[in-house]
Amino acid sequence: MPSPARFLVGVLGGMGPLATVDLLQKIIAATPAEHDQQHVPVAVWNVPQIPDRQRALAGIGASPLPALLDGVERLNRLDISHLIIPCNTAHHWFDELQSASLAPVLHIADVTLAQVSTVLNGVPAPRVGVIATHGTLAAGWYQQRLAALDIETVLPDEQEMDNLFVPGCYAVKRGEVTAGGQLFGQLAARLAARGATHLILACTEVAPGLAATQSRWLARSIDSTEALARYCVARWREQAER
Amino acid sequence: MPSPARFLVGVLGGMGPLATVDLLQKIIAATPAEHDQQHVPVAVWNVPQIPDRQRALAGIGASPLPALLDGVERLNRLDISHLIIPCNTAHHWFDELQSASLAPVLHIADVTLAQVSTVLNGVPAPRVGVIATHGTLAAGWYQQRLAALDIETVLPDEQEMDNLFVPGCYAVKRGEVTAGGQLFGQLAARLAARGATHLILACTEVAPGLAATQSRWLARSIDSTEALARYCVARWREQAER
Repeated sequence: MPSPARFLVGVLGGMGPLATVDLLQKIIAATPAEHDQQHVPVAVWNVPQIPDRQRALAGIGASPLPALLDGVERLNRLDISHLIIPCNTAHHWFDELQSASLAPVLHIADVTLAQVSTVLNGVPAPRVGVIATHGTLAAGWYQQRLAALDIETVLPDEQEMDNLFVPGCYAVKRGEVTAGGQLFGQLAARLAARGATHLILACTEVAPGLAATQSRWLARSIDSTEALARYCVARWREQAER
Repeated sequence: MPSPARFLVGVLGGMGPLATVDLLQKIIAATPAEHDQQHVPVAVWNVPQIPDRQRALAGIGASPLPALLDGVERLNRLDISHLIIPCNTAHHWFDELQSASLAPVLHIADVTLAQVSTVLNGVPAPRVGVIATHGTLAAGWYQQRLAALDIETVLPDEQEMDNLFVPGCYAVKRGEVTAGGQLFGQLAARLAARGATHLILACTEVAPGLAATQSRWLARSIDSTEALARYCVARWREQAER
């Protein structure tokens, strides 16, 4: 058996599958490379047969944890050096997944918040709208981390969640990416009307939707998928320079 | 340990990494799905630290076979049910990879040719231009299969390979996808001037380039990546209906 790769990003994906592909595309786009061999090595479990995270947290569906643990166990077989999960809501089960993983697991909110100071550097009185699932908003990962930086958050109200975010999210999952992006764009406009100067795209279905509609909000967004990609590329380049 | 998935596509990727992402995107786009859970389960070894296939076949670089076999061995650990390789040139080592794989390996030329009769159905006297690496053209996989269907091929000449195909291919690999697409578009125009009515994109770097330039040739092309994607989706839907 060949020796394990020293550096190998494992991706616990499939939530949804397009969000995983968006991550892989962003890793490649963020990598300065002259040849194939300079790109980041990635192993991907893009197996979407995982019970719906939003329904599970709403108490109306099965737990995704057994399927998530199966994915971690498969990635463990590949001798990965890092594990990332391009789905914010799945981080509800972060502790259990971290316990099961042989490789360290990055928390998507930590990686995303690391981008905030760069993006908001010099912006006077920024207010950050958070676009996320009910489960992610209820967990408070982003609100707490932004509060620790003295940054005010603007959250969707219940009506905006039901009429804009949730249908937008499921539109992307069924391939209606532009329709989803239009709903996310409307939600962004509502958050801006309530004072948001910037957005955190704290659900990985959002960026593909906004990209499909060429949304002007992307320029003022911190995208959790992009943050994961940049983190991977930075670590890869560090070890390549060693 | 959970029981192995009954259906799980394994992708031996990284050649180049963007071509692999293009395949994953095309699998999703070709899948009618209302929910995440209806999408094709895929495990991907997108590890591009594989010696350059074109240089190896030209006798000026190391063999990629050990790295390819390592990838197969990793995918074997995941209990995949099918193995696909989104790189035509890598099929030079098809027999060795098939011997090493626990899952059956699909030959990209077989899957691509299966699309030819659909696309060319009713076209009088079609002539098919083949865009591919020197290695793929020398192997003759596409020319032989087309000849068996009594379809004439149009091949790039040596100057077109050196000035258009090869630089286009390496442009895509270093992220200059539009520049690569422009070169591929020029090559397509040359093949059409010599009588090609349709194209086979027999190198997986070509379709992303032509897509980035919104090439009109795509509408008259049989894309080997798209063919792999459609094959996977058809098998997935068959087993889902059982």
